[in-house]
Amino acid sequence: MARWEPDASGRLVEAAMQLYRERGFDQTTVADIAARAGLTERTFFRYFADKREVLFSGSHTLQDFLVEKVTQAPPSMRPLDAVARAVAASGEIFESRRDFARQRQTLIVSHPELHERELIKFAALASAIGEALRRRGVPAPAAGLAADAGMTIFKRAFQSWLDDTKKKDLAHHVRAAQTELEGVVASARRRRAPSW
Amino acid sequence: MARWEPDASGRLVEAAMQLYRERGFDQTTVADIAARAGLTERTFFRYFADKREVLFSGSHTLQDFLVEKVTQAPPSMRPLDAVARAVAASGEIFESRRDFARQRQTLIVSHPELHERELIKFAALASAIGEALRRRGVPAPAAGLAADAGMTIFKRAFQSWLDDTKKKDLAHHVRAAQTELEGVVASARRRRAPSW
Repeated sequence: MARWEPDASGRLVEAAMQLYRERGFDQTTVADIAARAGLTERTFFRYFADKREVLFSGSHTLQDFLVEKVTQAPPSMRPLDAVARAVAASGEIFESRRDFARQRQTLIVSHPELHERELIKFAALASAIGEALRRRGVPAPAAGLAADAGMTIFKRAFQSWLDDTKKKDLAHHVRAAQTELEGVVASARRRRAPSW
Repeated sequence: MARWEPDASGRLVEAAMQLYRERGFDQTTVADIAARAGLTERTFFRYFADKREVLFSGSHTLQDFLVEKVTQAPPSMRPLDAVARAVAASGEIFESRRDFARQRQTLIVSHPELHERELIKFAALASAIGEALRRRGVPAPAAGLAADAGMTIFKRAFQSWLDDTKKKDLAHHVRAAQTELEGVVASARRRRAPSW
């Protein structure tokens, strides 16, 4: 029976982030992370498949949160509004951890193998949200498109939230990103299908 | 000096697809593919990094094509229309190969490691298109959003083109997908920022 370690997962994430900053991601091993956290490698692997996964420890929490919010949205709410509102609400997960999120993002964009992992997590998220919309009765094409458009809003809003020196909340940036996307997608005085 | 093999790359793609269909992707080795094509493994690795990459041999061609079309679009054309029109025009690359594209898609959706590779290619494509839009003078946020929205349209249109028993062309499906996305993203009688 494995010994119970209070918040072992949180300590491993914290230790990994310290080491990635100090030595760089490539120069840090799982053994280093476990040692810094005062835990064994065996404990590390009970929580994470590899040293990339440490940076995505919150992805299940986020996915469950967004799916629940989309599911609970008022029945009359338009699909993309339900997704955007859920993303805005997820600020409560990120708000107290903007510095962590910023450091994490810096790591991700500078390491292709982390960027790949993020793409996979985002695709899984889009898929789960599309599924939640279909359960609300949204037809398949619109559900998938709203989920994808919601992820586009999320990525844009999250980046501008990270960059925001005025520290406005995520919901503010989600509204701005949704308005920007509406401007980009809206047909200009179009009555029928695009004619280019 | 390596011996020149006429269309070695095309023969390897063809051989790989045959074997993936006959034996399954997991049961096929690079040695099998090279042997079926009448070539050496060494030749295989001159063209492809691994047996996944064989299925993405056209991705550079597609990226160059889309970037060129976006670059050449009339200066007054709205960014998303420029991307959608480029995607529609790419039908000339796919149109004669619908069966190949369908088999390829079946493989990709049933193998996570192929799906991952596709996500990476799509992200690279979105990034290159965003860059082409910025060179047209489109501001950074709108360029990125239009590139992402264009990829959403592409994925939706490509799937419905693959599924289309009436065999309408890709441009038809791109117009339909763009109209669907407009419906999903359009604010309902909204004058200001979303209020949810």
